Amino acid sequence: SDTTREAAAEEAEVGQGWLHAMGARILEAGPSQVVVEMSVDGRHLQPMGIVHGGVYCGLVETVCSVGAYQSASLKGMLVVGVDNSTSFLKAVREGVLTTTGTPITQGRKTELWRAEVRNAAGRLVASGQVRLLCLNPGDPLAGKGASGPGHKDHPDAS
Amino acid sequence: SDTTREAAAEEAEVGQGWLHAMGARILEAGPSQVVVEMSVDGRHLQPMGIVHGGVYCGLVETVCSVGAYQSASLKGMLVVGVDNSTSFLKAVREGVLTTTGTPITQGRKTELWRAEVRNAAGRLVASGQVRLLCLNPGDPLAGKGASGPGHKDHPDAS
Amino acid sequence: SDTTREAAAEEAEVGQGWLHAMGARILEAGPSQVVVEMSVDGRHLQPMGIVHGGVYCGLVETVCSVGAYQSASLKGMLVVGVDNSTSFLKAVREGVLTTTGTPITQGRKTELWRAEVRNAAGRLVASGQVRLLCLNPGDPLAGKGASGPGHKDHPDAS
Amino acid sequence: SDTTREAAAEEAEVGQGWLHAMGARILEAGPSQVVVEMSVDGRHLQPMGIVHGGVYCGLVETVCSVGAYQSASLKGMLVVGVDNSTSFLKAVREGVLTTTGTPITQGRKTELWRAEVRNAAGRLVASGQVRLLCLNPGDPLAGKGASGPGHKDHPDAS
Repeated sequence: SDTTREAAAEEAEVGQGWLHAMGARILEAGPSQVVVEMSVDGRHLQPMGIVHGGVYCGLVETVCSVGAYQSASLKGMLVVGVDNSTSFLKAVREGVLTTTGTPITQGRKTELWRAEVRNAAGRLVASGQVRLLCLNPGDPLAGKGASGPGHKDHPDAS
Repeated sequence: SDTTREAAAEEAEVGQGWLHAMGARILEAGPSQVVVEMSVDGRHLQPMGIVHGGVYCGLVETVCSVGAYQSASLKGMLVVGVDNSTSFLKAVREGVLTTTGTPITQGRKTELWRAEVRNAAGRLVASGQVRLLCLNPGDPLAGKGASGPGHKDHPDAS
Repeated sequence: SDTTREAAAEEAEVGQGWLHAMGARILEAGPSQVVVEMSVDGRHLQPMGIVHGGVYCGLVETVCSVGAYQSASLKGMLVVGVDNSTSFLKAVREGVLTTTGTPITQGRKTELWRAEVRNAAGRLVASGQVRLLCLNPGDPLAGKGASGPGHKDHPDAS
Repeated sequence: SDTTREAAAEEAEVGQGWLHAMGARILEAGPSQVVVEMSVDGRHLQPMGIVHGGVYCGLVETVCSVGAYQSASLKGMLVVGVDNSTSFLKAVREGVLTTTGTPITQGRKTELWRAEVRNAAGRLVASGQVRLLCLNPGDPLAGKGASGPGHKDHPDAS
């Protein structure tokens, strides 16, 4: 229902969305670099006791989307991710993961961002990239006009 | 600490891991098809009010890993995902998502699985693939010998 | 120089471009399916005597681009590929490869196409996908206005 | 036939394979960096007069495979590429392209290499990565035991 949808969107805006569900914290969010931190706990694991691949993908998606959102907003545009490709390099059981996103290209139609996930020792444990499409405000998006988090001065577009 | 790690792994095994964090339910888990269902709620959204890309990646990762785990276990092996590539085809604000994974190749060294995510109307909203590496039990994995969920007859390797 | 560029483009238009360099032949080219055939010979191999991965990528790129070009032209648009992701499933030493491309999504801003490469026995030997960006004629493209192969009624946009 | 196959493999070994078909030259080939150069000409273009995406994929595949081959041979192993993912960042009509490959991970079971393609002005025009599987000599590969280019001291495994 529309009420459910509005409530769900509201929840996301006040930080109850996927960023919160992952337990991630945005440390830095600019148009040329984004840094997110997350402490591994039981929720992040798969049954072999290592961090689930979907967690790395989610971290990569987050830093790339937040960065492209910052970058696109300088042009008065919004972004939406279209392709995420993430590689898992070293299995992790615990500790703090730091994910850093940087732009590869920032065009008028798309942006491409790359992310690296490092463990507490600074070792690369996952890397990935996200292709994002630039939208104009009001472009159709899932049955509504595309809009950002709006009046809440909120850094995370993802 | 080791105690924390053991507890975290235990939690994952009893269903408190990423599958639970996503709110996903395994409907079918075999070596040639896996189906997972998830109802979108506020936790899954990003600030524009649509499902976060990391959620689709996590669903794709789950069905592919669970399937490859089932398939590899027929050969006495385990699997670990190495690359996830997921495309977002249609933005979603609410409803039930059904994700189905099927094998593309099932080799002695790697498996490649493909997944499709459909909304309640049956429309394809995301698709992706995961490359998984086959391991022998006891192969090194994040400082321990690789092992599955063990004595708990548990279908989810991811 | 401009003269060299014009000559190079002209060459591509009359069939001396990459399609010809690969030794591929377009069997079918429509907005919902494209089929290309190629006989493996010495030029396609890498030093281990199997088909070079770049050949499969090139086949995938070709069928997806030709198809999206056909599809976009129905909307008066052009396309340009932005991301190609190809998986190699079975090594091949010889024989005819048949590559079939079909659309996953055909939007106003991007298209996503998927391709399968099969050997003479019909076995899947490679698969992949290409994300393509839709352009309006005259949009900037490498220092010129984007344009298709023009007056030559030519099916291959890639 | 076997005679055709032997001849085809022989051709590849003496430099008539895909590297030659692309018109690429290996400038450097070591286990931690590979550099390949290629001058764009008419054969590399698609009908819009820009370099065909398959050419970038082929360059990425080549530097990553040659590098992983060098790296694996230090362990007495061979490699075979399994997934290539290449992004096209800026359309090119002419000039020299320089492609550099560097390792992301070099494991016992797989290697992951990354490549960047730059134009004559040093601008990044494409980037990509290749996942490669490590094989022991004699492991089955397309109906024969895997073997490298053998007695010919030849740097290119791809």
